[in-house]
Amino acid sequence: MIKKIFLFSTLLFATNAFCAAVKVAPLNWWVGMQAPELQLMVHAPQVKGDDWQLQPYAGVSLQSVQFADSDNYAFLNLQVSAEAQSGWLNLINRSDPSQSFQFELKARQAGSKDRRGFSSRDVVYLITPDRFANGDPKNDNHPSMVERSNPEFKGGRHGGDLAGVIARLDYLQQLGVTQLWLTPVLENSMPSYSYHGYAITDLYQVDPRMGSNEQYIELAQQAKARGIGLIMDMVPNHIGSEHPWLKDKPTADWINYGGEFVGTSHARQTVQDPHASEYDKQRFTDGWFVPTMPDLNQKQPLLARYLTQNAIWWIETAALSGFRVDTYPYSDKMFLQQWLQAIFNEYPHFNVVGEEWTTETAIAAYWQRGGHNRDGYISYLPTVMDFSLQTALVQALNEPEGWDKGWWRVYQSIAKDFLYADPNNVLIFGDNHDMSRVYTQLKQNLPNTKLALTLLLTMRGIPQLYYGTEVLLDNGASNDHGDIRIDFPGGFSGGIADAVSGQGLSRAQQEMQAYVRQLLHIRAKHRALQTGKLTHFAPFDGIYGYARVDEQGGGVLVLLNKQPTPYTFASTRMAEVLGSKSTGRDLLMDKDIALATLTVPAQGALLVLF
Amino acid sequence: MIKKIFLFSTLLFATNAFCAAVKVAPLNWWVGMQAPELQLMVHAPQVKGDDWQLQPYAGVSLQSVQFADSDNYAFLNLQVSAEAQSGWLNLINRSDPSQSFQFELKARQAGSKDRRGFSSRDVVYLITPDRFANGDPKNDNHPSMVERSNPEFKGGRHGGDLAGVIARLDYLQQLGVTQLWLTPVLENSMPSYSYHGYAITDLYQVDPRMGSNEQYIELAQQAKARGIGLIMDMVPNHIGSEHPWLKDKPTADWINYGGEFVGTSHARQTVQDPHASEYDKQRFTDGWFVPTMPDLNQKQPLLARYLTQNAIWWIETAALSGFRVDTYPYSDKMFLQQWLQAIFNEYPHFNVVGEEWTTETAIAAYWQRGGHNRDGYISYLPTVMDFSLQTALVQALNEPEGWDKGWWRVYQSIAKDFLYADPNNVLIFGDNHDMSRVYTQLKQNLPNTKLALTLLLTMRGIPQLYYGTEVLLDNGASNDHGDIRIDFPGGFSGGIADAVSGQGLSRAQQEMQAYVRQLLHIRAKHRALQTGKLTHFAPFDGIYGYARVDEQGGGVLVLLNKQPTPYTFASTRMAEVLGSKSTGRDLLMDKDIALATLTVPAQGALLVLF
Repeated sequence: MIKKIFLFSTLLFATNAFCAAVKVAPLNWWVGMQAPELQLMVHAPQVKGDDWQLQPYAGVSLQSVQFADSDNYAFLNLQVSAEAQSGWLNLINRSDPSQSFQFELKARQAGSKDRRGFSSRDVVYLITPDRFANGDPKNDNHPSMVERSNPEFKGGRHGGDLAGVIARLDYLQQLGVTQLWLTPVLENSMPSYSYHGYAITDLYQVDPRMGSNEQYIELAQQAKARGIGLIMDMVPNHIGSEHPWLKDKPTADWINYGGEFVGTSHARQTVQDPHASEYDKQRFTDGWFVPTMPDLNQKQPLLARYLTQNAIWWIETAALSGFRVDTYPYSDKMFLQQWLQAIFNEYPHFNVVGEEWTTETAIAAYWQRGGHNRDGYISYLPTVMDFSLQTALVQALNEPEGWDKGWWRVYQSIAKDFLYADPNNVLIFGDNHDMSRVYTQLKQNLPNTKLALTLLLTMRGIPQLYYGTEVLLDNGASNDHGDIRIDFPGGFSGGIADAVSGQGLSRAQQEMQAYVRQLLHIRAKHRALQTGKLTHFAPFDGIYGYARVDEQGGGVLVLLNKQPTPYTFASTRMAEVLGSKSTGRDLLMDKDIALATLTVPAQGALLVLF
Repeated sequence: MIKKIFLFSTLLFATNAFCAAVKVAPLNWWVGMQAPELQLMVHAPQVKGDDWQLQPYAGVSLQSVQFADSDNYAFLNLQVSAEAQSGWLNLINRSDPSQSFQFELKARQAGSKDRRGFSSRDVVYLITPDRFANGDPKNDNHPSMVERSNPEFKGGRHGGDLAGVIARLDYLQQLGVTQLWLTPVLENSMPSYSYHGYAITDLYQVDPRMGSNEQYIELAQQAKARGIGLIMDMVPNHIGSEHPWLKDKPTADWINYGGEFVGTSHARQTVQDPHASEYDKQRFTDGWFVPTMPDLNQKQPLLARYLTQNAIWWIETAALSGFRVDTYPYSDKMFLQQWLQAIFNEYPHFNVVGEEWTTETAIAAYWQRGGHNRDGYISYLPTVMDFSLQTALVQALNEPEGWDKGWWRVYQSIAKDFLYADPNNVLIFGDNHDMSRVYTQLKQNLPNTKLALTLLLTMRGIPQLYYGTEVLLDNGASNDHGDIRIDFPGGFSGGIADAVSGQGLSRAQQEMQAYVRQLLHIRAKHRALQTGKLTHFAPFDGIYGYARVDEQGGGVLVLLNKQPTPYTFASTRMAEVLGSKSTGRDLLMDKDIALATLTVPAQGALLVLF
């Protein structure tokens, strides 16, 4: 689009906040980043073909300007050298000065690059923020957001928000969790079912019904003050269908299948399969989940750059300790590789866990960093999710012992760790926001739920708890997501129970909450349970046992008894881990015990420090 | 044991045949082998400590003599140089000349080293010889063998023998098989249940009720004359409890657990599992299958050498084209490595398939040559068995289509080929001697059995058929091994049907036999079905389709229809394999067809040459 050349002397600069017609992404950047490249996506009417200039700024240059298919986008390619100081850039549209804008280069927080991501030293607490706690009823509705609060509706917005999480940080700290993973809190300006957050309509703004970007930063800071990290849920695969890109696609190929719905085949194995047809490969990664979630084409370099900068922006902005990546394998695999490379270039010790929902350990392992994939694909994903263990654990506890059954399922699942480059960098869990509550899956059996939690909080890997598991949240016979993502007790007005004060909790809920707290404190105290070498023993007589051993040869022996009677046995079969020690400490009962003969409580656990 | 020094001038040499008190293994050896080392195990009364000498023989030297725990063994370590000529060695026991013996060094068959083992160009036919055909009723019983013929008993000997197989070679050639795998035919001098052959009591002798070593060689030669190779079933893991070693163990550690029965845990995953306890690892490999099958300790170097030479001896003696190795992972993994290295040192293009009975592709793949195992283990096993596909195929045909069901099981199983170093070097089968007949597993459904066989004879890998599958042998409701290993029709007196003449076969049996023969001839004719690159398509509408494409871009498209109605579809979704070709040939109907729209028969297959 050709415009008049405009000569000017006095300039009025637009910032995002001041000139609604010009939107710039990212919202700001930083000096002192590893990568000098920075690409600003400018969305403004008829900007295509305009002449852009950067007012002189030491260490920063405008290398080039790219345009795309739409008339309304310009991509400004800046170079920010290591010498550049923080301050405001003046970017001038010489063809239309009203679209000129200022852009801030900030100074980074000290130690930003060297932050350590979440790890097996942590315990992750997963929250669906709309269902956790309504800290600020004033933001339940927002004039610019179509969907209104509707707490009575399972698929509606219940009013939970960042303020509610902030207000419960003391509770979470006392419980003993050290990382928070919130399902997406970014703007979901969708007509309905927006509470889950996965149909994002602005990748740079917290949804006003959740709070604000500033409140998200406050959450990160307040959590950090309590030793708790913050993990953001990233969705590079798709957006919400109300995203402005749908009305004005930067390029014709921005959205897969030309912006028209074609469903994904969910045939995830096409990614690895050496025999997969191109037809099926495309259907898997390019197909959409649902019509309301247009599938992004990350092969498009401008989009890939946008998503990459967006990710880095959030890490730096909110001092994040990690990402959880939604529907990981549904994105283009070469994009995922480059996206993570860019992130780790800036934050070498950051952590990212990808959602690969498969019980096939070999497929999950394909994605983990450090693998030797036969197809030559190099993945940079540090952490994967252990759906294999989740499934095995529930089956193990729900069925009687037998050949290939019961604890053998867990034993066999863990044995497949030979496929993982780093078996301690897998996320382990009894449930999450997309499946029935673990207490429900375990048929409301309290002892078995305690056994499951004992395993999850002592096994190799990074444990993840879903909010309310500590008070036995239960979706009963329903499999509805709304029943799974049930309101956290005490988080909303009108509830009868409060998980924080303990008021109104049943005896079973109180027992579970105390047990989870005890386990978390035991785990926190004994490094062997976080990073110790695992040795496990083939199940026998309804017992599954394993040891976590530290570098000094001490550690914790975990014995889980499924049977309804106490089980006593000679520990000689476990001599290779216990060594010559004759006494140890029963961590749950907090008393010394002799090691020669061990007794595991009926349908219960024995944790022995040795 | 000290004996008198004996001076002698005239010598009488014992050969194995002449002096029962001296047993020597191997029975002979060859000049011109790659490895110059040869160790003779001499079993003779009070031979321990004796003074042995080799009468001068050009190119051969006696390097050392080893003794073991038993008084009755000597191990003579010979060196056979490349210059040595064939002839008889004179090995002299100077302490007891009556134990002196002659040992033959033979010349090798031309091309012996360069023989090519079985491969995906072949079709393997598995026979349980006792149940296939009684070619020589005179050998049904033998005076030195305790167990008598008892055809009425499921677990008894039915009289099948090598003569019976030899007599049916023309039938097998016409059927179209190219390799025979016979379950073990070596001596099983056991009191009962000896028919299956896996309790070997002499690793160098064919069981006299099967025939003789000479007859085994004849079988190999007669088969070879018909283009059929011979695969021997090797059992390095265990022996029969009546083996002389049990009464006189060469070393105290010859048999695991000191020669006393301790059962294996069958926990095969301990081999790969990085967390497995030493306790469990030992229980798996050192434990016995059953009390009648003592488990050999292949960590014992003298035993390892014995087993290695025994394997090479049979390859060279019977001009074998391959081994099938029983209970592969139950043997010591370092022994397996060295054993195969020694075999491939002599026969670089030989093939060996190991029985790793697991549906976990990752575990099977661990054993396949060329893998990158995280624990650093290097395996030399070229071929593994695809139990994953066997299970998936039966499930696929027995259940309705659905998400993750039906053909999806086969598709997912094949997709795991990304784990294999060489996916075309896996043995694929619908059944074998240890599981119900495929026709039984498929609930006596003839069209589904034909679909299964169509897949097995056109899919990547090396197809294996169990004897009588071509005439729908069926074990009905019984899971008894005796009913699975049922007498082959016509192989025994008194039967009403004969699979060779076709007499007495039901219409369904005749139909199946003709179909298998047709498939085998189609496979033989089209190299793409043997070695072509596989591309498969995610199942749709009850159809599973795949192409095998040769280097020139032509090949065969296989379409399998589970539904009870014919299915017509546009072939555009398969354009990536069909290319621009407009016509092809329907191989089953033997007629040209247009490719634009394809119709797959109801519950049937379409094989399209393009």
